[in-house]
Amino acid sequence: MFLHTVFLLSFLLSTSHATVQDFCVADLKSADGPAGFPCKPAAKVTSDDFVFAGLTETANVTNIINGAVTPAFVGQFPGVNGLGLSAARIDLGPAGVIPLHTHPGANELLLVTQGYILAGFISSSNVVYQKLLKKGELMVFPQGLLHFQIAAHKRKATAFAIFSSANPGLQILDFALFASDFSTPLITQTTFLDPALVKKLKGVLGGSG
Amino acid sequence: MFLHTVFLLSFLLSTSHATVQDFCVADLKSADGPAGFPCKPAAKVTSDDFVFAGLTETANVTNIINGAVTPAFVGQFPGVNGLGLSAARIDLGPAGVIPLHTHPGANELLLVTQGYILAGFISSSNVVYQKLLKKGELMVFPQGLLHFQIAAHKRKATAFAIFSSANPGLQILDFALFASDFSTPLITQTTFLDPALVKKLKGVLGGSG
Amino acid sequence: MFLHTVFLLSFLLSTSHATVQDFCVADLKSADGPAGFPCKPAAKVTSDDFVFAGLTETANVTNIINGAVTPAFVGQFPGVNGLGLSAARIDLGPAGVIPLHTHPGANELLLVTQGYILAGFISSSNVVYQKLLKKGELMVFPQGLLHFQIAAHKRKATAFAIFSSANPGLQILDFALFASDFSTPLITQTTFLDPALVKKLKGVLGGSG
Amino acid sequence: MFLHTVFLLSFLLSTSHATVQDFCVADLKSADGPAGFPCKPAAKVTSDDFVFAGLTETANVTNIINGAVTPAFVGQFPGVNGLGLSAARIDLGPAGVIPLHTHPGANELLLVTQGYILAGFISSSNVVYQKLLKKGELMVFPQGLLHFQIAAHKRKATAFAIFSSANPGLQILDFALFASDFSTPLITQTTFLDPALVKKLKGVLGGSG
Amino acid sequence: MFLHTVFLLSFLLSTSHATVQDFCVADLKSADGPAGFPCKPAAKVTSDDFVFAGLTETANVTNIINGAVTPAFVGQFPGVNGLGLSAARIDLGPAGVIPLHTHPGANELLLVTQGYILAGFISSSNVVYQKLLKKGELMVFPQGLLHFQIAAHKRKATAFAIFSSANPGLQILDFALFASDFSTPLITQTTFLDPALVKKLKGVLGGSG
Amino acid sequence: MFLHTVFLLSFLLSTSHATVQDFCVADLKSADGPAGFPCKPAAKVTSDDFVFAGLTETANVTNIINGAVTPAFVGQFPGVNGLGLSAARIDLGPAGVIPLHTHPGANELLLVTQGYILAGFISSSNVVYQKLLKKGELMVFPQGLLHFQIAAHKRKATAFAIFSSANPGLQILDFALFASDFSTPLITQTTFLDPALVKKLKGVLGGSG
Repeated sequence: MFLHTVFLLSFLLSTSHATVQDFCVADLKSADGPAGFPCKPAAKVTSDDFVFAGLTETANVTNIINGAVTPAFVGQFPGVNGLGLSAARIDLGPAGVIPLHTHPGANELLLVTQGYILAGFISSSNVVYQKLLKKGELMVFPQGLLHFQIAAHKRKATAFAIFSSANPGLQILDFALFASDFSTPLITQTTFLDPALVKKLKGVLGGSG
Repeated sequence: MFLHTVFLLSFLLSTSHATVQDFCVADLKSADGPAGFPCKPAAKVTSDDFVFAGLTETANVTNIINGAVTPAFVGQFPGVNGLGLSAARIDLGPAGVIPLHTHPGANELLLVTQGYILAGFISSSNVVYQKLLKKGELMVFPQGLLHFQIAAHKRKATAFAIFSSANPGLQILDFALFASDFSTPLITQTTFLDPALVKKLKGVLGGSG
Repeated sequence: MFLHTVFLLSFLLSTSHATVQDFCVADLKSADGPAGFPCKPAAKVTSDDFVFAGLTETANVTNIINGAVTPAFVGQFPGVNGLGLSAARIDLGPAGVIPLHTHPGANELLLVTQGYILAGFISSSNVVYQKLLKKGELMVFPQGLLHFQIAAHKRKATAFAIFSSANPGLQILDFALFASDFSTPLITQTTFLDPALVKKLKGVLGGSG
Repeated sequence: MFLHTVFLLSFLLSTSHATVQDFCVADLKSADGPAGFPCKPAAKVTSDDFVFAGLTETANVTNIINGAVTPAFVGQFPGVNGLGLSAARIDLGPAGVIPLHTHPGANELLLVTQGYILAGFISSSNVVYQKLLKKGELMVFPQGLLHFQIAAHKRKATAFAIFSSANPGLQILDFALFASDFSTPLITQTTFLDPALVKKLKGVLGGSG
Repeated sequence: MFLHTVFLLSFLLSTSHATVQDFCVADLKSADGPAGFPCKPAAKVTSDDFVFAGLTETANVTNIINGAVTPAFVGQFPGVNGLGLSAARIDLGPAGVIPLHTHPGANELLLVTQGYILAGFISSSNVVYQKLLKKGELMVFPQGLLHFQIAAHKRKATAFAIFSSANPGLQILDFALFASDFSTPLITQTTFLDPALVKKLKGVLGGSG
Repeated sequence: MFLHTVFLLSFLLSTSHATVQDFCVADLKSADGPAGFPCKPAAKVTSDDFVFAGLTETANVTNIINGAVTPAFVGQFPGVNGLGLSAARIDLGPAGVIPLHTHPGANELLLVTQGYILAGFISSSNVVYQKLLKKGELMVFPQGLLHFQIAAHKRKATAFAIFSSANPGLQILDFALFASDFSTPLITQTTFLDPALVKKLKGVLGGSG
């Protein structure tokens, strides 16, 4: 009986599992495609591929926004490839701010793990949905909408954002406008902002044009 | 033989098509769901449900942007419900501008049908991709990224945008910031814009807070 | 100029946004469908719909597994409807265990927020991938595969699980076998378990048949 | 210990499963939507909802094609709603034919269970892929492409088609052309067929116009 | 402050954007997969990749159908790879016809840009939905259903078709039957068409068998 | 006229079909990705790629379960790549059993082709749905849920399972627990099973740890 079972088992394994997998750990050295990266061969996959330890530490927030975003997207965490999930850690000093931004490719679920965060998003109908969140509270931000997070109550704060894609993207409004080579005349034409202000912010953020 | 055929036909029609359809024209009076609106009963669907005549005319562009966007989303064109497609007409007077905006729920394919349009988008990596388009040219804008269209060569222009969703959404940056009740202190905190400028633009666009 | 702008804005709002939304907060009183629940009308949606405060407290773990799972699926958190995301809080006393289980409808991303957790899953090829996780570490569990979490180092632990569906499901192996009315003869035939053991575990977990 | 366990179990069941399900048996009396029909309440779902007994018998094939297609789409088999699967039984008398047809909404996997079937499809590149199939053999037909099945070797044959949608659709070329009210002038313009032949076939199949 | 900001920016760019993109311009030299082609490296992507200028000119329509279809599918326009959109230009001389055809892999949105077009499709229930369209009007054709376009009012006409896939496919009924090597006996068996007519049309369209 | 037509045809074929296909037969020698394997070049695809003859014979069932599962997943049947369909043949001797198992990546439609099969699944709510099936009857098993099949009425039985994925996966509960290197202490902690029983079953099924 033992041999027969092992025979069945071997048969199932050898034929059905030789080439396909339950998961698809990214082979980041290959070109990605619309659905993600090619899979690392199953034989080379280990437990470590499914674990990411890069979000355990508080990031340095001594910068202009008094905050930092540390991503665990597929580029950093190959195990999420094809699974429709990824994450980022948000660290904020007192009154730290994650400026207005969007994730063009994913919805977001925010979990506050320390302090208080005022978070909000603006809908296509120009309605602002915002809330002061405390530790353990969750807030969702629908895909592609402008949103922000601010540490409240003069305390530092930490949160984890989980995205509905392994590759959510991150477009920070100020960086798109003022840290790019988007020309000042085009910015003023398409935003009604003042040229002097645009130039000043480009100076701070490193934009050209 | 004739009777048998008709019998087969009737059988197929009565059993397989009584309750399901090849399409799902939106019943806009019912609540929508994540995949769209419930379907109008097949018996009430006519050719007109698959046709939209609301984009035939040039829109009035005597406004601040010298331009207009006329949507043919599922709310206007119920026939696209569930089909992953919708459209909008863009009319621009000479030097008219469609200000920076995103479609949070869809990719966009732009087709210029009159004049010249300078169009561009900014990626998550803060790279600007822009091009002067002429009649008959196409440009794609990936989902959720900031983009703009400007009539060029001092001539009026027309284009049609086609979206990869029946409900693409439309978030116009200036309206989100300055035509909403997003508070001025929060705007300045999350964008680094000058409070005086924010207040001025709110005055123009009707925002509060 | 002001009037023209407001006119444009009103036009866009009234025509394109009357019936469609960027989100779809669940109307839990209506029947759900394959893609989720019908949407609550936009006019009744408030900031609170996007926030969930039910995972802020440590759950009572004085039970047989010395652990608890508190869900924030669409049934508890209507704001995640249609967004491909939901969450659960895992509380474990010292040596507490979340027994072998699957989420038939979602991939899972686990974030440890307190203590140490030994977590693992078994693939279709019968390979066990397991790892001792500490605070801030992430582990991903592909959809439908058996997995477990155990508090390690004799300390209590907390984690948050985020799922790639608003309705991930939760099939706990022991409950499926021993807390259901799955008949003992069928269990022994389909698992090779001993009838005496099956009856004993049914006694503990409340199963019949 | 027993009480604690049951408490945990009850908690999980009452909170996480009150409103959501692992499946979505169609409530055919409600309007369907793009993703299928609303779900029957879980409390009313029984084992019978997951079983379909309508394909057990050989269909009457005394008709013009000496064949019959009996569907088990969502309209007949509500249990497949939302599951991306449905089926049909194909019965053929000796030399019976399922005429050229497409399934606009699904790929098809054909399983021959009796006799011999010559089956084939034509690609967008106008290449014909055809094969004589025997009992137990499978053939796959990509979505939306014209295909056919013919009983071979002068014997009756049976097959089961499984589709990648609960609502695959079925467009039979001859019925679309000659059993509809597609006008004869339009048919001849769009197919190059001879008007006399069109009228003759309309006479046989019941078309008008 | 400046340095800190640039540091944050650099960090975000280098870690999160090194390997993933907001878009996936097709690398047509690599093998495609079910979701499309592998992506061209981001560093090699330019504005030109998002623009297609191949539909600006009227195609030559001096042929049997007095019409032409010029595709801008992913094979011609690599920028649409993975975006669920593509296009084609339809040119028709007076009374020109795009014969009955299907797109097996996409829904279609037709925009008339010149003249008058009579367009229609046939459903799985053998109902014909047709309409005379004028400039600026839109019509949708659900995936996989037979449809046609004819220039009306004795004038030439132009339209643009937009598809819900980068690779919609195009199966022209007459070409599938009469320009392929589909054997005449099989055609007559599966369509009821007359062998003499089949042979005649094969002669015109170049089919064999 | 003939030349013009052929010209049109050639044009369409050469431009639109040079690089894209209606199907994507797996090139199993290349690495797969989240959506499946890269496509074999169209020029090398033949009718045989769409046909699978590996399920025509009754499998050897002289083993511990008196049954066998023979897969026709993408690894065996490359033609189903990207089509959302695959199959398996189930052979059972009298009283043969396919033990409790899940398909983590697909829904299943079971078709009995010989004998009687008692089949059932257990939901997330721990409800057992089971039914005695006879020849020609269908039963669906929603994705990721534990299910089983047993030959009934002391007769051998055959069934075909069709899956909603080309790569459904197969996790057999007993093999996951007792044919893997899942350690006995972890098994007993996460299942409440008796260590002695675990060791005995590991001995039979070949597990270690």
